[in-house]
This record gives sequence, structure tokens and C-alpha cells, in this order.
Amino acid sequence: MDDVLTGLLRPKGIAVVGASATPGKIGHTVVKNLIDGGYKDGIYPINPTADEILGYKVYKSVLDVPDPIDAAVITIPAKYVMETVKECGEKGVKGLIVITSGFSEVGEVELEKELVRLAHSYGMRVLGPNIVGTLSNSDKLNASFAPFLPLVGTSSLVSQSGALLIAIDAITYTRGIGFDKLISIGNMSDVNIADTVGWLNEDESTRCITLYIEGLKDGRRFINECAKAKKPIVVLKAGVSEHGAVAAASHTGSLAGARHIYGAAFEQAGAIQATDLSDLFNSTLALSLQPPMRGENLLIITNGGGVGVLATDSAESAGIPLKFAPETVQEEFKKHMPSFGSAKNPVDLTGMAGNDWYFETTKFALSHDWVDGLIVLYCETAITNPMEIAQSLYNALKETGITDKPITTSFVGGERSDSAMQWLVENGIPAYNDPDLAVKAMGTLREYAVLQDLKNSPINNDHEVDRQTALDIIANVRAEGRTGLTEVESKSIFKAYGLPIVRSDLATSEDEAVKLAESYGYPIVMKIVSPDILHKSDAGGVKVNINSEAEIREAYQTILTNAKAHKPDAEIHGILVQEMAPWGTETIVGSVNDVTFGPTVMFGLGGIFVEVLKDVVFRVAPISDMEAIKMLDAIRGAPILDGVRGEGPRDKKALAEVLSKYAYMISDLGEHIQESDANPILVYEVGKGVKIVDARIILKD
Amino acid sequence: MDDVLTGLLRPKGIAVVGASATPGKIGHTVVKNLIDGGYKDGIYPINPTADEILGYKVYKSVLDVPDPIDAAVITIPAKYVMETVKECGEKGVKGLIVITSGFSEVGEVELEKELVRLAHSYGMRVLGPNIVGTLSNSDKLNASFAPFLPLVGTSSLVSQSGALLIAIDAITYTRGIGFDKLISIGNMSDVNIADTVGWLNEDESTRCITLYIEGLKDGRRFINECAKAKKPIVVLKAGVSEHGAVAAASHTGSLAGARHIYGAAFEQAGAIQATDLSDLFNSTLALSLQPPMRGENLLIITNGGGVGVLATDSAESAGIPLKFAPETVQEEFKKHMPSFGSAKNPVDLTGMAGNDWYFETTKFALSHDWVDGLIVLYCETAITNPMEIAQSLYNALKETGITDKPITTSFVGGERSDSAMQWLVENGIPAYNDPDLAVKAMGTLREYAVLQDLKNSPINNDHEVDRQTALDIIANVRAEGRTGLTEVESKSIFKAYGLPIVRSDLATSEDEAVKLAESYGYPIVMKIVSPDILHKSDAGGVKVNINSEAEIREAYQTILTNAKAHKPDAEIHGILVQEMAPWGTETIVGSVNDVTFGPTVMFGLGGIFVEVLKDVVFRVAPISDMEAIKMLDAIRGAPILDGVRGEGPRDKKALAEVLSKYAYMISDLGEHIQESDANPILVYEVGKGVKIVDARIILKD
Repeated sequence: MDDVLTGLLRPKGIAVVGASATPGKIGHTVVKNLIDGGYKDGIYPINPTADEILGYKVYKSVLDVPDPIDAAVITIPAKYVMETVKECGEKGVKGLIVITSGFSEVGEVELEKELVRLAHSYGMRVLGPNIVGTLSNSDKLNASFAPFLPLVGTSSLVSQSGALLIAIDAITYTRGIGFDKLISIGNMSDVNIADTVGWLNEDESTRCITLYIEGLKDGRRFINECAKAKKPIVVLKAGVSEHGAVAAASHTGSLAGARHIYGAAFEQAGAIQATDLSDLFNSTLALSLQPPMRGENLLIITNGGGVGVLATDSAESAGIPLKFAPETVQEEFKKHMPSFGSAKNPVDLTGMAGNDWYFETTKFALSHDWVDGLIVLYCETAITNPMEIAQSLYNALKETGITDKPITTSFVGGERSDSAMQWLVENGIPAYNDPDLAVKAMGTLREYAVLQDLKNSPINNDHEVDRQTALDIIANVRAEGRTGLTEVESKSIFKAYGLPIVRSDLATSEDEAVKLAESYGYPIVMKIVSPDILHKSDAGGVKVNINSEAEIREAYQTILTNAKAHKPDAEIHGILVQEMAPWGTETIVGSVNDVTFGPTVMFGLGGIFVEVLKDVVFRVAPISDMEAIKMLDAIRGAPILDGVRGEGPRDKKALAEVLSKYAYMISDLGEHIQESDANPILVYEVGKGVKIVDARIILKD
Repeated sequence: MDDVLTGLLRPKGIAVVGASATPGKIGHTVVKNLIDGGYKDGIYPINPTADEILGYKVYKSVLDVPDPIDAAVITIPAKYVMETVKECGEKGVKGLIVITSGFSEVGEVELEKELVRLAHSYGMRVLGPNIVGTLSNSDKLNASFAPFLPLVGTSSLVSQSGALLIAIDAITYTRGIGFDKLISIGNMSDVNIADTVGWLNEDESTRCITLYIEGLKDGRRFINECAKAKKPIVVLKAGVSEHGAVAAASHTGSLAGARHIYGAAFEQAGAIQATDLSDLFNSTLALSLQPPMRGENLLIITNGGGVGVLATDSAESAGIPLKFAPETVQEEFKKHMPSFGSAKNPVDLTGMAGNDWYFETTKFALSHDWVDGLIVLYCETAITNPMEIAQSLYNALKETGITDKPITTSFVGGERSDSAMQWLVENGIPAYNDPDLAVKAMGTLREYAVLQDLKNSPINNDHEVDRQTALDIIANVRAEGRTGLTEVESKSIFKAYGLPIVRSDLATSEDEAVKLAESYGYPIVMKIVSPDILHKSDAGGVKVNINSEAEIREAYQTILTNAKAHKPDAEIHGILVQEMAPWGTETIVGSVNDVTFGPTVMFGLGGIFVEVLKDVVFRVAPISDMEAIKMLDAIRGAPILDGVRGEGPRDKKALAEVLSKYAYMISDLGEHIQESDANPILVYEVGKGVKIVDARIILKD
């Protein structure tokens, strides 16, 4: 565990620089909040002109404080901060909690950088600037201007929005969903989200990590820290819509990165992405209280047929569709319901269900191997007491002693149901006031299990590559002042990374073209190669289906003539002679070098799938082989690869291998390649592999 | 307004048959609930063995009651019900509220039918059986065993689930979302959902109609009643998933109909479909308090950048994506924010925003023509009082005097925010505890406006058709004991309904075939016509691209030989000679006769779009021309019809006309046609029309 970060987030001894005796000033609020929160490890108000604040002795400088200080909360104006940083450094402070605003968020980028440089020179870390502060229930620490410590809970929240953190602080009490820590991350000048994830993963008081993110700075490191985490992570990303991304960028001043890549990145990081603020709370509740759902069999017990059906619908949307329970399981349920109940799943105990039936069926369901996750629904009735039903569920759970199988609940009713649900939450069983939410929560627990498997799949970096050849080509292109590679250059790099391109080579004479064609066998494709001609077809620079020597010679001349007519001063490298690949299913693999996540790989089916349906999937490179397979299955048109209209299944194994190698290539050459594509990649039947027909690489400027 | 239904749902004088002095019995609960609810129009307990119940005189029979009685609540066992029905009929009762269970839901279908027959013979209507009862705040009527009248509200709920109705009754108080009436509809032996929709549309105390549906009985009538309604309708349909549909069927004992058709039906009915129980409440709140959003421009005002971005994301999902406000509008907003605020939209007043800024910006936004809908967000801060912010919004709204532009709000915070939101709701402004919900609510108000336009578009029934020809063909097929029509028969019916089929006719000799071919012009397609050969290609019964007389003659013989080899005893009607349509965009139109909604029409693009992507859209027939156009745009592959890859746009007008005519055909022949398709329909460039190449009709058994 990082001791410096621990000093920052769980400090022993805390100074408040800019402490004030005037209520309403932030320097006063922070001191008051530390006292009200019950912090006992030393509060040291710093102010050159005061003697006492709220009963605490005031020091003129941190250097005057006789005791050790781990952290300093800084509330003085930006222009005075540097002097304080120096003093803190000299004092041996570990971390600075810089509430002060007026740094990069208003354009003062250099001042912020200087702040961090100075802090680092003393070995200190900086939280902020431009933050609310940091709160920790387990340390009784409210080092912030948020009015109180949140309701006690076992998750910890990191928020890039201060206003939202303050609102969430209050919400914890009204929704009954608590947190241990609330960390305001602000401008992330130094300590960023990846740092806090890494630290919270080691924090003994945190069971689940909850993130509100507007824009990451170092995406790949974030993915790596999350992937290393042994605790569930749930994240709400603001700015996932087109207009929202623009709004987020204008709000945080940070580049948001390509919005469609965030979702892929979270998945690779093993982090659950919440859809909205309520979902962030609801998912946090489930993940902080319950284990992942490790299999596919969901069972629903209900006393109301209607809510049972509603929950069944929700289960399909949540990716955990119901199946009928096995006969033996049904037989057991039938013992605890009237004849007009249903034991199939959803198990409808009917409105006659009392405490005992709930107890017995819950106990049985939790204990049975077939059940991987259990949802218990209850509609408030006149003949039952919601609190007793809640206790029955709890007792059933305790009696089984089972802790590795998740349970969620929903009580649909009035105040008595609400109280019973609050009791359940306090006793470790997530409860929601809508069946749909109990199902979504279970869906989250299932997703967590699936993502855990995925993030633990190893990345294959063991490709045989000829990196030097690739670097030589790139150097040559750069030497010529170009960023766009020709088809031949692009293909050579692909080839150097072991990608299966169609056989082709450059001919600079008719005879060479004929020789190449004869060695490949007919039919043949010929294409102009010129850095000055990008749209080869438009220039009459492509001929296909060439079947004889005579045709080769004719095509050679025609292409040259067309090219010269199209652009008289074009530099012509020659003509590419290429085997004409037989027809296969068209796919596309491409890459962009994302501002946040670096090299990312894209996959889609060719033609209308990409052009009309935008049916593509992204991953941050490099990827594991398992991820490559998952990408193939993630597009809507995935069934095409499994064979349609009487065709056999396509060679997905070979295609996944190409994806994996491609991702490795763009990652390995990440400093150089800005974007690229292999389009089309023809995929043949199982065992017959794939062929990349065309290649394109554009270098970074 | 239907007086009999009014007597049932707003009775003057109510008898409780089976009234009991024993607490806990339903016959006791109902009397008590009527009294506790404050019903003043005459409560008459009926019981042959009691004298007084809860201070009310008990009568041995309804016939003994001296005053008029509009409705009778029946709680006695099913086997004694008939006698009571007779007495009620003789007494002149208008409606029976049959709480008693033990009818069709347990297989006693005949008993239930008999109950309705008997009631109808006296002009009475039956609510139920197997219901909770019916409740009405505006009549202080709790004629049910639900424990109390719901929180007062302006929407009325009809529920097919009794347990859910009871739970919702309690929820109204905890969520602060009220209802005027709660109507339990049970087995729908007589009064069904369409009846209640029609009646509630006339009910002065109801501003919004809220429905919980498991399965409809007469879908087309439901659509018609909803389409006629002048009030917003929101519906939660249980059983929309595959497994859920099965669970619903087993729960209600009614056929659920094809689940994917319900969504289309609700849209045609102009009813908003809720996604879950919470959404049903949230949509009801918005629709019962606010007008529809009649344009596309949504404005968001916030004091927190983060929630502003989250709401912007939600707006995209809700189908009302944000646009930047015009410069002139931005200029005005800039007067009420610090320099680091944003006036673009979302309008971020920043955390410094107080009552005045909220008041001024809300007033301006509501008054400005550019704004079609306004969402106000508020993050609880230390310097503001949520209740004052709420009052500022309310005052701004009042001061503008605007009532035809919707506003929704979300306050993100603790108890003070919750109280402020409750105050807003009580004062007619919907408020939600998550920005996402405020946006969804606005999306619902927008959807309502769009659906209103759609449902008011007239259905085109003015097609020139030759119905008799179609009926003759059908009669002939039936006479031959078939249900499957041959291609020639199917095409003849299509032709009779004005559908543009490719030119074709039956040849029964080589010479006839040649004559037909010469009259159409080459190329020609020829196909075997036999009721015994369904898969013509497999039987070698199809020849395409025939270009001369000689080829026609050869093809004629080959097809006959192949057909005989394939099935020696096949009855052969001849060979179809058909013009070979030039290539066009492949589409499919089809139909099924749904058990709930009757004839429904389906549209999709051909090939993988239907086969792999299941990219199809349904509508209940007949449809308006506007609906036909909307169907074309509703599929994911819609851009294909607008022209892709350099092709010109397709003739959507001609295609929509085909859809409209097709829908009319299956509706007009709804008693006969079970399913049908026109596959493929080739669509050409704008102005060049469409051609139906193949036709298939299967009759009802």
C-alpha cells in the first residue's frame, strides 16, 4: 500500500491552511467539519492572524506545529499556494488536499504544473486542486466542505464532480445507501482516478469502488489498475452521448476521448458501467453486499404473479433470462404453495404466502446446486408483515450458511415495506422498491462474474514479429515527409507482424508483372502504387480478374496511362500485382490512436454492416485471445460468421488470431501509427483461414 | 358517457353481498373500507343471517333494500353467485363488482360465461370476477379489500393484477404519486380494458389513464378506444420477454398474443409503453401534470456541470438530443451566471446559482419560442435552500402564464431536496430524484406529442379493390380442401387488391408460354405451379433468365419432367410465365393473423436483414399512410432505402403505398387469411416504383 497516499487519504494529523474564524468561509467550514466528524488524530488550523478557531489553537505556519502532520488541507487563494507547499514539504507533510480553485480549470495550467513539481520535489502527493475535499467514515475524517460524513457503508466513491459529491453525501441518508469514503478528485493534477483505484483496492474499509468519471487522463493505466483490483468497480461515465461529450469537455476542460471507446475500456478493465446516477447507487449496493453470480441459473420467488412476470421480463433485458426449474426442484417448491401457485420459475407462492413459505423456499433455493442467483419478490398484502418476511429471508440465508451465492430482493408496497427493505440492506441483503431494480442488481452481479473471467484472460504478447522491418519502413516514409503509407508499405508492415495478407508484390515493368502473376497463378489484380494517388479506383488505377499474360501486359499499360492522365506529376512507385483472393465473408479490422486510451482496435463486418448499421466493436490494444473471440461475437451481425443461408461457419479462430496480432501490432507501434485498417479481410470456411486484401496505415504527425 | 358503467364505477348506492360481521373476512373488510373511505351515498350490507354490521343495517336480500342501488359488490362463494345476480337484476342494479374468485382462472369457464349472460339479460355489466374491487377518491369510494384509498391524484389506474393494485395503493403514499381511481379488472369476463379506457376518457376526475396489462382479449378494440381517447395513456405490459410471455399466460390463463406485436399496437393506440413499474409511476406523474412537448428543442438548466452532462446523455437515449441554444438565447442566460458558467445548453449556472438566477433563467426559457421543453436540475449546495429554489421555479412558471410547454425537474440531494420535490409535485411540476428520470419524463411528454400526431392520421380505406375475385379464389381453394394457395392464386388476390406484382400468367402449353413471353418481352422466368410442390426450386421447377422462344420451349419441358420426377402424383396446374424483374433493393412484406390483434402486417429488408438481424417492424392492420411511411423508417436498415454506396434513394412512396394496400387487403380478408407474404418486393429508384416478385397466402383453418 502506498504510504504517501495513505497519509493523504487517511492522515494522522491534519493541517487546515487558511483556517478561518468566520462562519461561512471555507477555511472555517473545513475546521468545523473535521471537528463535527469526530476526527481525533490532530487538527491544526493554520492562519497567520488568528489565535483560536472553534476551540483549537491556531498556528501561523505548518512549520510551527509541534506534532507530525500527514496532510494539509489548502483553502487559501491560488496565488499564495506555492509558499505553503514549500512549508508543508519542509514540515514532512505527505499529502496536500488542495480545495483552492483557480488553476487549470480557468486556464492556469502552468501554475498547476508548478504546484505538482514543487510538491513532488518534497515527495508529497497532491489531491486536486479544485476539489471539495476527502471524507472517510472509518477515520471519522471530514476534510472537506461537504456538510457531514455520509451514511456508513462499505463502498468508497471517487468523484470528478464536486457538486455531485456533495449531493451524493446527502443522498446516502435518503436512499439508505452508504459509503466509507468520498474522494473529490477535481483537476487530477497529480493523484488521478487510477491512483485512487489502486489505493482503494488495498484499503481495508472498502469493499467496492464507485467512480464518477467525466474524462480520464491516462486511459491505459486506468484499465491496468482496475484490472488488477480484486474488488468490484462500478463507474458512471458522464458524456457518453454526442452532445454530452461536448458538454463534458467544456465543463472539465479535458479531452473526453472517443466516447464509444470508453465502454470497451470499462469492460476490459472489469468495471461495471452504470447507466445513470440511480443505477450507480443500486449497483454499488449490490456489489458491496453480495458475491458475483457465477452461473446462469436465476430463480425468482414471488407472492404476486404480476410482479413475477415483470421481473421475468427484466431478467431478459438484464442478460440473465429465466429458465424453468428442473422437475425435482419444482417438486420441492410445490410443498409450499397452494395448487394454483406455480413452481416453474418464477416460483409464484401466491398471495397466500406467509413467513414460513418464504423461509422454506428461500432456504431450499439458496441451498440447491441448480440455483446460481436468487431474487425474492414480495407484494405487500393484508395478511403479512413485511418486516417478518424480511426476517424470514435473513434467517433462511443464515441457516444455509451460504455466502458465495447472491440474493437480491424487492418489496413492493408502502412504508412498512420500505422499513423492511432498509432492515434488509442493514443486514447485508440488497433490497429495491421495484422488481426491475432487484433484477438489474442481479444482472450486475452476473456481469461482474463474467468480466472477472475476461479481465483475467492473459494478453498474448508472444507473437513472432519483425519489428525492425516495420520501423525501417516507417523511418523511410517519415524521411520522405509523408504520413500516409502506400499499400505496399502498409502490407509490408502487416506482413512483418505475421498478418495473412494476399500474396502481392511491386512490379516496375511489364515483365516483372508477368513473372509475379505466373508465380501466383491467375486470376490476378493489378493496382497503381503512388503516394500521390490515394483513390486508386477513381484514377483508373485498378484492374481485376486478369487471366492471361496478354491481359497483364495490357493492364500494365492502361493503368500507367490512366494514372498519368489523372495526375501528370504523380510519383509512381510501380504497379502492385496481387493474387485475386476467392470470395469470402467481408470483414474489416482497423485502428485509431485514441487521445485517452492510445491504440484501439476496431472490428466489423464489411459493406452495409459498417457503412449503414455502424455495427462495429472496439477494444483498447493489446487484447487477450479471449477478448478477440468476444469481439467477434459482440457485433449484431455475429451470426453471419457462424454461417447463414446454407453456408458453413467461417474460420473465427483464424479471424480472432488476426485481431489479436493486429492489436499487438498497433500497440507495439503505438508511437507511430495514428490509424490503420485492413479492409477487406476475407474470411473463409472453418480451417480455410482469412486473407487481408487491402492495407492502409497513417502515421502520427 | 356509458351510464351503466358509471353506475358500476361511480355508484350511487352500493350493496355488499356477503357482508360479514367477522373482521378478517372479505365481506367485512369491504363494508369497513366503504365506511373508512367516507362513502356517503348509501351502503347496504346484504346477509341473510345478520342484523347489523359496523352500525349499518343489514338486509337479507338486495330486494329488501328500500333505496335505489347502482352497484353490488359480490363476495360470496362462486356457487351462490347466480341467485344473487338474479336478485340484483330484479332490483335494477347497474353493475356487479364480483370480487369472488373460482371462475375461469381455475377452469370454470362456463360458470363465468353464465354469470355474464345472466347479468346482461338484466342490462347489468360485470367487473371481474376475481378482483380486488374498485376505488375512487373523487367519490370517496373504496369498494374493495385494498386497505385504503390511494393518495389523491389526477390519473386513474386499471390493473389486471390484484396483488399489484394493492401494492400500488400503498406505494402512492411513499412515492408521493397519487391516483383518482384504482380499478381491478380481474378475469375481464365482461368489462375489459377497452371499456374502462373509453369510460375513463369521459371521466371528469381523470386526466391520465394508467394501465397494467398482462394480456388483452380484443386487441383491435383496445387500439380503437385508446386512439379515440383525448387523454394520455400509459401502459405497463407484463410478459414482453419470451419466458415472461409464458409465465404471464400461465398466470392469467389468457393467451398473450405475439409479444412483439404489443409494442406496435400500443404505438398505434397512441399509448406510451412504460418499461417497468417505476417508469409507469414516473410517466404517469409527467403525463398527468404536464402538456406534451410539441417541438424538438429541449433546454436544460443546471447548477452542477456533472448532472448537466449526465442529463445530456440521458436526453440522447430518451430521443430528445440536445442542441446548442441560439446565440441570442445564450446572451440572455449569460446575464445570470459567472464567467465560468456555460450558456450553451445545458445551461450551467454553476454552484453559485441562487433563487434569482433560477427564477430569471426559468422564466426566460419558458417564454422563449426556441424552447419546446424545459428541464431544471438542482444539486443541493450549502448556500441554497431547495424549497426556495422550488418556489422560484414555480413563481417563474406562474409569472409566464405558460401552460402549453412542459417542464420537469430533478433535485439531487438529501431530505431538504426531497421535501422541495414533493412540494413541486403538489404544485403541478413533476420532480424526480435522478436527472435521468426528469429527462425520461420529458421524453415521455415528447413521445406523447408524436404519438398524438400519428394516431390522428387517417387510415386509407379508399383502395379500389376487386373483393369478389379474391373471395372466389378463396372459396375455390377451400372447396378443394386446401389452405395453402398456389403462387398464381396468391398473385391473383394481390392483383385484385391493386398490388404491383410482376406480370405473369399461367401457361398450360408450350405455345401459350411462348405467347406470354413474347407479350412481356425477354428475359423471362418460368416456374411450376402445383399445390403439391411447395419448394419449387428444390424440385427443379424454376428456370430464370430465359431469352428466346427456343429456350422457353426447352424450359417448359424440363420443368415438367423435373416436377414429375420429384413427385410423380403431383397435380400440375401448368407453368407460370413471368417477366424477369430487373434488380432492385429486396424488401419483404408479410402478415400474420394474431390471436389478440387480428391481421398484422410486417415489413423488413430482404436477405440477412430479416434472416440474421431480425430487423422487422409490425403494425396492426389496417394502417394509415403516415404509419406506412413510419414503418419504412422504423427498421435499423432504413438508410438502405435512402440510397447507400452511391445508389440513388429508393421509391419509398411506392413502397409505402404497397404497405398500406397490403394492410388493407389482410384486414379486408381478415376472416380468411392466416398468413401471407410478398417476398421479395424489389424497390427501384424514386419514381420507378416497386415490383412484387413472389406471393404466398395461407388461409385460416
